[in-house]
Amino acid sequence: MNYELIKNKIINLINLGIDKNEMIRVDKKPQELIHEFDFTISKEGKTEEEMSSMIDQIIHNSVNTNHTFFMNQMYGKQHLIGVYGDILTTLLNTSMYTYEVAPIMTLIEKECIAKLSKTIWKTSGDGVFTPGGSISNMMGLMLARNAKLAHIKKEGLTNAPKFSIFLSDQAHYSFLKSAIFMGFGSDSIVKIASNEIGQMDTPSLVKAIEIEKQKNRIPLLLIGVAGTTFSGVFDELDALAMIAKENQMWYHVDAVYGGSMLFSTQEKYKFKGIEKADSVSWNLHKMMGIPLICASFLTKEKGLLNDAFAVDADYLFHDTEDDYNLGQKSLQCGRRVDALKLWLAWKHDGELGFENRIDKLIKIANSFAEKIKSNQNFELLCQPDSPIVTFRIIDTDMDNLEGNIINKMVRDQLFKEGEIIFNYAEFKGKIYLRCVISDPEIQENDINKIISKIQETLNFLKEQVEASFISLNV
Amino acid sequence: MNYELIKNKIINLINLGIDKNEMIRVDKKPQELIHEFDFTISKEGKTEEEMSSMIDQIIHNSVNTNHTFFMNQMYGKQHLIGVYGDILTTLLNTSMYTYEVAPIMTLIEKECIAKLSKTIWKTSGDGVFTPGGSISNMMGLMLARNAKLAHIKKEGLTNAPKFSIFLSDQAHYSFLKSAIFMGFGSDSIVKIASNEIGQMDTPSLVKAIEIEKQKNRIPLLLIGVAGTTFSGVFDELDALAMIAKENQMWYHVDAVYGGSMLFSTQEKYKFKGIEKADSVSWNLHKMMGIPLICASFLTKEKGLLNDAFAVDADYLFHDTEDDYNLGQKSLQCGRRVDALKLWLAWKHDGELGFENRIDKLIKIANSFAEKIKSNQNFELLCQPDSPIVTFRIIDTDMDNLEGNIINKMVRDQLFKEGEIIFNYAEFKGKIYLRCVISDPEIQENDINKIISKIQETLNFLKEQVEASFISLNV
Repeated sequence: MNYELIKNKIINLINLGIDKNEMIRVDKKPQELIHEFDFTISKEGKTEEEMSSMIDQIIHNSVNTNHTFFMNQMYGKQHLIGVYGDILTTLLNTSMYTYEVAPIMTLIEKECIAKLSKTIWKTSGDGVFTPGGSISNMMGLMLARNAKLAHIKKEGLTNAPKFSIFLSDQAHYSFLKSAIFMGFGSDSIVKIASNEIGQMDTPSLVKAIEIEKQKNRIPLLLIGVAGTTFSGVFDELDALAMIAKENQMWYHVDAVYGGSMLFSTQEKYKFKGIEKADSVSWNLHKMMGIPLICASFLTKEKGLLNDAFAVDADYLFHDTEDDYNLGQKSLQCGRRVDALKLWLAWKHDGELGFENRIDKLIKIANSFAEKIKSNQNFELLCQPDSPIVTFRIIDTDMDNLEGNIINKMVRDQLFKEGEIIFNYAEFKGKIYLRCVISDPEIQENDINKIISKIQETLNFLKEQVEASFISLNV
Repeated sequence: MNYELIKNKIINLINLGIDKNEMIRVDKKPQELIHEFDFTISKEGKTEEEMSSMIDQIIHNSVNTNHTFFMNQMYGKQHLIGVYGDILTTLLNTSMYTYEVAPIMTLIEKECIAKLSKTIWKTSGDGVFTPGGSISNMMGLMLARNAKLAHIKKEGLTNAPKFSIFLSDQAHYSFLKSAIFMGFGSDSIVKIASNEIGQMDTPSLVKAIEIEKQKNRIPLLLIGVAGTTFSGVFDELDALAMIAKENQMWYHVDAVYGGSMLFSTQEKYKFKGIEKADSVSWNLHKMMGIPLICASFLTKEKGLLNDAFAVDADYLFHDTEDDYNLGQKSLQCGRRVDALKLWLAWKHDGELGFENRIDKLIKIANSFAEKIKSNQNFELLCQPDSPIVTFRIIDTDMDNLEGNIINKMVRDQLFKEGEIIFNYAEFKGKIYLRCVISDPEIQENDINKIISKIQETLNFLKEQVEASFISLNV
């Protein structure tokens, strides 16, 4: 078989990159796309030419997540060395379970884990790369359970006491998913109200713990968030650490988004208290632009992951040196190498380069926030803790409901046009717009463009509404 | 920053491929490798030249899993279209949670799931791509639990009855890991003895179910294996289906390795009964050579995954059309696109091409087995059910223990030399050698080479042992 045409197309894409000036997305409903494109598999294969044109259509119908104005998710603009590292990972196709089959990759993962954990705890802890933040968070629950009642590993949760897990109403939904999946039940999740910017309200936490204790439920786990999905704010990690300690709870910090800010000397102060965490989730595919997936789960104490996950599998793990068989501390068996792309980017940029990336992102977010603050048509939720700018369009003529409608309409219109895309979310009854900055090379002018585009869209929509009223009156 | 040198190196690798004639692996202990190679991250970054030489060292110190004689794991030789598809996945960097951000990828995943499930059940079921077989198996446990007692989702396992999970002693270790992780406890795992080739002994299963019932444990889940890790044999899927039904158990088939044989008309008969399974795990990165990770979890009934995993996450899932937001049936939130590489390879080869790949692998395994059978120095475990050939060196002069030592020594010596690598495993007190065939282009001559290499190594080791005796006598 001849693969030259497809190979050359892929090489060409690597050479030129996905076109920066292309639309971010083309607005199509699933049914339209199904109509246009043949998804089905046939008996006979396709020719190289047909494959090549399909690849063009796939690119055209994908979201250009590498675009500066892709601000919809908590990741985006890729780190180029990370991209080459990920391609190398594909070419080498190594599985991360044993040292035997992944010698240098095992040592690279171990180095990354040591370095990341040292960044949190000053001394190197333990950890493993995972298939994402949700599964990292799940592993936190597992270690919390093991720490409290180790016999559950053997006997299961039947007859075990009821546990309670405390987190803010802004914490990630994966904790609820985990609690259900791991047999704690959704009842074990105790959501604590957040304050006006989305941080957990600590007095409410203290009260909630008391209530749960009175119900004879054991406080198992406290979750602190370093960068919420909504506004990117940080919980008061130090205050939470103290409360966790007082109540003998496992303390897990979800730094999936915010973690990378630890690379910055000037941002480190926001993490005060994280060094008291028992475990931390930290994704590098978000703020650092490493290609998806690059997620870590880190623990302060060594050996806990092995205790939790090691099993006997004679056909695979022969060696006594389980310290080098990373499959023994992972939830997975076969596992793609996710550390290499991070390690190469880190090696290339050095610590200073990583710091620089974070400082640039924060500087842009602050400047964006300033522009919003000084514009009377907008209301800024808060000074950004991390590179997410959360705000809403305000208008003295609008009540809350109308305000919500117009904010959502503006976002949906822009999303449909596909040149600038960002997301929205509801918070305490109000709809906010939410721009995640992922490209450290974004310029002052780009930010001005986003703001004026929002205003133009607002005016356009208002005119449309008025026009429809006039036509109704006629 | 200038990335040209690294980019060109990667492009060159894609053009030439990883050298087929290179050693499969270089024998180095962790400490040697740590001594030779600088893993640490420094304050300042590295130059392009330094990066380039590091990449060379990484390749040189990785296992060449693409080599025909890499027979150590249950994957290997990559499908080239799969490789290009995986690179495209990296370049497009899309996350699989919402249709909004992954329009065409969502439809591609849905098509693959429909096609895979149709291959099992004739009508299209439901499913999702997962980060590997272990997590697919975990999802099977989750659905089994939900089917039996749905209120556990809310209330948790405390106060729930004790469950029992039945599997053969040759089933994958991930079920034990899952039972522990999900709060069932390792006590819930009931291992059924396997027969002389590694299939579950069904009379023992029937007895075990009775015993568990007498202990007031609820039979929850029966696991059938389509391709064990040891010998690649299939459980009697149809007989197990009946037993599962009689006892109102969820029936999960672990076809992680063997599943792809469903593509072959001539091999389908081995799966009789799989159409009665409630759920199936099936990895495409194994026999099909799709780059790591390409794993699926499939269910017969639609909607169960959504019931199990959907949660409310306002900042992410806006649409009512959850059928197109695949994050709602996944354990993960952010998720790499693993379906694209499979879909492209499938589209390219057509159904016939996929069938052809499997038939070639089986043909080679049979021919390999014939050669072993007709050689008096070897004992074949059994006619291979799938492309794994399991055998041992025998010698009338050796007792069992000596036989074990010599089999392991031969494997370790070859492994150390790094030109042909395969694994070993213990089964009923005997050490067997285990060659996994992953390259459909392997030739008759290659197989002869493997067999004579094993014999040479045996002779070499015998001479060494004798020489050491002689030198002792002198």
